[in-house]
Amino acid sequence: MSTAIRILGIDPGLNATGWGVIDQTGSRVSAVGWGVIKAPPRAAMSQRLCFIHDAIEALIAEYAPGEAAVEDQFVHVNPGSALKLGQARAAAILAPARAGLSVAEYAPRLIKKAVVGTGAADKGQIAAMIAILLPGTKAEADAADALAIAICHANHRTSMTRLAR
Amino acid sequence: MSTAIRILGIDPGLNATGWGVIDQTGSRVSAVGWGVIKAPPRAAMSQRLCFIHDAIEALIAEYAPGEAAVEDQFVHVNPGSALKLGQARAAAILAPARAGLSVAEYAPRLIKKAVVGTGAADKGQIAAMIAILLPGTKAEADAADALAIAICHANHRTSMTRLAR
Repeated sequence: MSTAIRILGIDPGLNATGWGVIDQTGSRVSAVGWGVIKAPPRAAMSQRLCFIHDAIEALIAEYAPGEAAVEDQFVHVNPGSALKLGQARAAAILAPARAGLSVAEYAPRLIKKAVVGTGAADKGQIAAMIAILLPGTKAEADAADALAIAICHANHRTSMTRLAR
Repeated sequence: MSTAIRILGIDPGLNATGWGVIDQTGSRVSAVGWGVIKAPPRAAMSQRLCFIHDAIEALIAEYAPGEAAVEDQFVHVNPGSALKLGQARAAAILAPARAGLSVAEYAPRLIKKAVVGTGAADKGQIAAMIAILLPGTKAEADAADALAIAICHANHRTSMTRLAR
């Protein structure tokens, strides 16, 4: 007997934070909702972070996910971009953490591998595979990435459950 | 007639987040409270960020500051450190932002100049000047930095008020 688990995947970014909610029952996954949070670009940093945090808090209230997952971003072009991304990332993951959800972190290569089968996939390939794995979704790139993160978590938590038996 | 304003200064860091609360009445400042928040170093990132956020939320409830200020960190050794710092920074400034406080940002050089008189001061000089400017405080380095940020904001908000007249 399999019980369904609802997973919230988040792809954080200061300008655009992708999100995707999927339901997993056994080895089956289905998309429940997805979208992109766009914080006002000219607002103060603290206001932009609040916007991201509050938007995800509202999604958690609406969809009531049981677990959350986020990309673990290691590599960056420059420290300035990394500082911005870090802030967006914290604003995004604080919402599920404050709601008492576990927030799993996955390396970009692992997420790509879970969805496309290779760790070197580009954004276009991810979006194309998401449209196949989750029929009916027409998610723009950032939302497709978030759904890919949720699928990666679904795969890994299933493996872990199997190992734990 | 001068009314007092209470300022919360924050010096964010993933391992140690300094904080300092001062009261400003006209051109006079006095220290109200200060300390260092140390998130559990081995906890998951989401838990560490929650710890920092919740600690500052509790400080805001206890001290009821009217305004907040934070260092605007631009330069970093490497992108990995910048990503970590960015996350700590967001966790720290989300608390006052969510409480409806304005969060002013000041460049490190401006903070050093406000306290020591030169933008090239080191941490030891800042701590020594804080002990003189705010007699009675025996703040460790991170807390002294946070008090320096609060003093920098006190100076600048006074100038702005004067200009506005």
